Amino acid sequence: MDAHYLAERDRLIAEDRSLRVDALALDQATDAEKKADAIVRKLRALENETVWGPNAPPPPGSLHVFPGMSFLTARETIVKTRLFNIISKMPKGGLLHAHLDATVNARMLLRLAFKYPAYHVRTNVRLTRETISTTLPEFRPLKESQWTTLTSLTDDAYTPGSWVPLASARETFDPSLGGPDGFDDWVIAALTINPTEAYHTHNTTDKIWQKFQSTFFVTRGFSRYFPLWIEYLREFFLSSVDDGISYVEPRVPFWFKHMIDAGGEENVPHREWLIAYNRVIQDVKDKLAKLGRADEFVGSKIIYSTLRVCTPEELEWYLEDCIALKQEFPHLICGFDLVGHEDPLKPLIYYFAPLREFVRRQKELGLHIPFIFHAGETLGDGTAADMNLYDAILLGTKRIGHGFSLVKHPRILEICRERQIAVEVCPISNEILRYTGSMPMHPLPILMSQGIHIALSSDDPAMFGIMGLSFDFFQVVVASEVTGLITLKEMAQDSIKYSCLQPEQQQRALSLYRQRWLTFVDWVNDTFGEDY
Amino acid sequence: MDAHYLAERDRLIAEDRSLRVDALALDQATDAEKKADAIVRKLRALENETVWGPNAPPPPGSLHVFPGMSFLTARETIVKTRLFNIISKMPKGGLLHAHLDATVNARMLLRLAFKYPAYHVRTNVRLTRETISTTLPEFRPLKESQWTTLTSLTDDAYTPGSWVPLASARETFDPSLGGPDGFDDWVIAALTINPTEAYHTHNTTDKIWQKFQSTFFVTRGFSRYFPLWIEYLREFFLSSVDDGISYVEPRVPFWFKHMIDAGGEENVPHREWLIAYNRVIQDVKDKLAKLGRADEFVGSKIIYSTLRVCTPEELEWYLEDCIALKQEFPHLICGFDLVGHEDPLKPLIYYFAPLREFVRRQKELGLHIPFIFHAGETLGDGTAADMNLYDAILLGTKRIGHGFSLVKHPRILEICRERQIAVEVCPISNEILRYTGSMPMHPLPILMSQGIHIALSSDDPAMFGIMGLSFDFFQVVVASEVTGLITLKEMAQDSIKYSCLQPEQQQRALSLYRQRWLTFVDWVNDTFGEDY
Repeated sequence: MDAHYLAERDRLIAEDRSLRVDALALDQATDAEKKADAIVRKLRALENETVWGPNAPPPPGSLHVFPGMSFLTARETIVKTRLFNIISKMPKGGLLHAHLDATVNARMLLRLAFKYPAYHVRTNVRLTRETISTTLPEFRPLKESQWTTLTSLTDDAYTPGSWVPLASARETFDPSLGGPDGFDDWVIAALTINPTEAYHTHNTTDKIWQKFQSTFFVTRGFSRYFPLWIEYLREFFLSSVDDGISYVEPRVPFWFKHMIDAGGEENVPHREWLIAYNRVIQDVKDKLAKLGRADEFVGSKIIYSTLRVCTPEELEWYLEDCIALKQEFPHLICGFDLVGHEDPLKPLIYYFAPLREFVRRQKELGLHIPFIFHAGETLGDGTAADMNLYDAILLGTKRIGHGFSLVKHPRILEICRERQIAVEVCPISNEILRYTGSMPMHPLPILMSQGIHIALSSDDPAMFGIMGLSFDFFQVVVASEVTGLITLKEMAQDSIKYSCLQPEQQQRALSLYRQRWLTFVDWVNDTFGEDY
Repeated sequence: MDAHYLAERDRLIAEDRSLRVDALALDQATDAEKKADAIVRKLRALENETVWGPNAPPPPGSLHVFPGMSFLTARETIVKTRLFNIISKMPKGGLLHAHLDATVNARMLLRLAFKYPAYHVRTNVRLTRETISTTLPEFRPLKESQWTTLTSLTDDAYTPGSWVPLASARETFDPSLGGPDGFDDWVIAALTINPTEAYHTHNTTDKIWQKFQSTFFVTRGFSRYFPLWIEYLREFFLSSVDDGISYVEPRVPFWFKHMIDAGGEENVPHREWLIAYNRVIQDVKDKLAKLGRADEFVGSKIIYSTLRVCTPEELEWYLEDCIALKQEFPHLICGFDLVGHEDPLKPLIYYFAPLREFVRRQKELGLHIPFIFHAGETLGDGTAADMNLYDAILLGTKRIGHGFSLVKHPRILEICRERQIAVEVCPISNEILRYTGSMPMHPLPILMSQGIHIALSSDDPAMFGIMGLSFDFFQVVVASEVTGLITLKEMAQDSIKYSCLQPEQQQRALSLYRQRWLTFVDWVNDTFGEDY
């Protein structure tokens, strides 16, 4: 082979990769990191043959198998791989894009609800073998005066629309529908997306969004009950920490102006939520400290969110509310966003007037609540949802949520580099919501090649069955030969650097991250170094 | 709405789009072009609701419907749309990426074969209801001395592997397998890819490539018979012209060193092919001239192609052969390529030594046979197939075939702009071969936003059922709000500008193109101007 040609080739590859977001990290990698990276590459190459290769058996429910394949069918196979074992132990940094009401495992959520006798459930048709798959449960905690003594949703005598105590509904669930386990399965199916839906019956972005939205309808019955919400929050923090996430910055939905209190009254205002939020952060920190794990959690901040369905006038109320909360809880409220399915809902420009006023008001009051907008979560090319990227930039967004269509916009990519605007990329969410056919088709490598900083995120882990960030990191690393452990570290660190943590908080978080990273690298080398 | 903000927004959009490959064309569009473009946009918006909207009925065989959906299920719906009617009448320019043995409609091919009594067919198992769907027909023209009097492939008495005359095999095809029509359907199925294969049983690039390759195995029985090949060529040229294509630059496979002559002897060398090729070009020109359509066809050149499966030593023979043919037919041979499934086959760098020698030999002989390499037709990120892009560039490729993974390589994109390297993009091929889930997920808009010149191409129209370029143009325009008629014109013109036509030939082709374009624009405005 021609040495001159090879040198020229290496130079071209180096030039091509010099803009990549991980270029510096790769240059600066230590020997231990390079060794761990090499282990991961060897292990991946091996499992890409033995687990994901053309001669490996496809996972149940699929005819096909390949690295980065449809997540919902691959999930049970993924968890058995050694690569996943490594990734699950990797420190992840921050989680910067997750909707709070989609962050607790569905079975855990149901378990939490059973603690409250106030919880009732109803359906709008009687459940039978014919209706069960298309009928959603509606949950609500009732005032004690409204509690019922009905016993069954599935009895012939059930009147659609009437409330049945949760525990009774489960116990008396008709054996022909699976009995109590059947009840659980029915509820879980309504709270999550299954492979048949994602890859068959609802295999377009529009259709799977319909199913997706129905899961929020169901979960809302739980997430609006203040006592449960507090436990939910704790569970979210703790399960995140268990996956190696040390900081969370969720979109908290403030669309409803009140939560329901312990007694069933809809009267808990937003400021009470934040008082509780603060308390849960502290509780979790205390709990971890007692376990000698204080360094694993640096805290949480809130991106105030409401829906892209309101009028500009209605939005004004939320913006003022956000300002008031920021004044009272300056360390908690760290950003503002409008959420929902971008394709059919209102574009950012529709809200220009109140959003500009919001910026003006902040200046007047000496506040800083950056926009952290969802933008470009779409397959559209030049549609209103795609054009949201322009408005997000012009309105000064701190990060971009999703930015799936960003790769079509060279000037915006340039601005993202200039202004250090990171993108919250949610690979599994994009795949399940049918923006990409599978991980190898995902535009993440394009963004990385363009020098865009990435905060890898899970979006709606409860609906997708991807608690933590391990699954997203796994799908990214399994489907690329360029990406290795050092690139994942860069993404994890970026999720701290581009968070809303204050500089000194960030420094501390990064320093803690680096310590954990060293431990992790040593563990990889000690555990797998001899085998690979 | 704030005028200052809107002006700033327009400026940002203009900046973002200024790099686009169609920026100048949009600036220079005439009023008539703008009117026709507006008609197309209105019609598209209408049909995207009525034909492709969520409330429209999905095409048979699909649960889903949306603009740019899976082509093989959408085909019959597409041909009924008014947008397709317009696109099919648009002058297309050149076809720069098509494999010659995949350019004639399968039913037409079979019809051509029936003219030759030398044609026989065999199978390696007897055909039954159980075996028919997995058994391929093998076709071959036999020497008269080998002709058989066997009558049926489906008779109990058939010995697998024995040759049956084509006409008899069809006539006697068992009624339980559909009789003669069943025979045709079986052969067509073996020559084409159907929706069940692409979107269900073979729904990965690796698997659908297996099916795809089997169609080449079957078609080879036809494409290697010299008398048939001549008719095939004529049919390819004429059907291209009928779709508004005025120039074709196919990859002609020279892998086999001889074709089979009229008498069934495998003895027709490459130079005879080119003599015939020349003659067919002239015949087609004469025929069109007689019809007063001389301006519709400027001719054809050949990209000499062989397969990425040979050894470097074997390749040397082909390269010398290519040089000899170039010397004898300088106006016909215009480029060299290595074809085949990039993922599993040999990478370009494997052939570095003979390829470099080929360049040196050309210098010595004063020849110019540019490389026009397939590169990056892969979902891989950093795999050997993805890395082919580096070698294609370093070896001085004139254009890039497919370049599906090019969007991940900013430095190569830059070089493509600097050196005016166009990319042959084959949208429907990419979708059927599962590089992209559907047209809205295709990276074409990314390439266009990066200022890359595009020659839209059909790749293997016979296997995909997409004769001409209308279907590819349709899928591109239906799935983007940015792309309109003026952008399509730019792509069509680029397919002339980046072809291997000599400068004066190119000028003539462009000038003819522009005349036809004016007529087309007037037709659009006259026909649809009042309705939209």
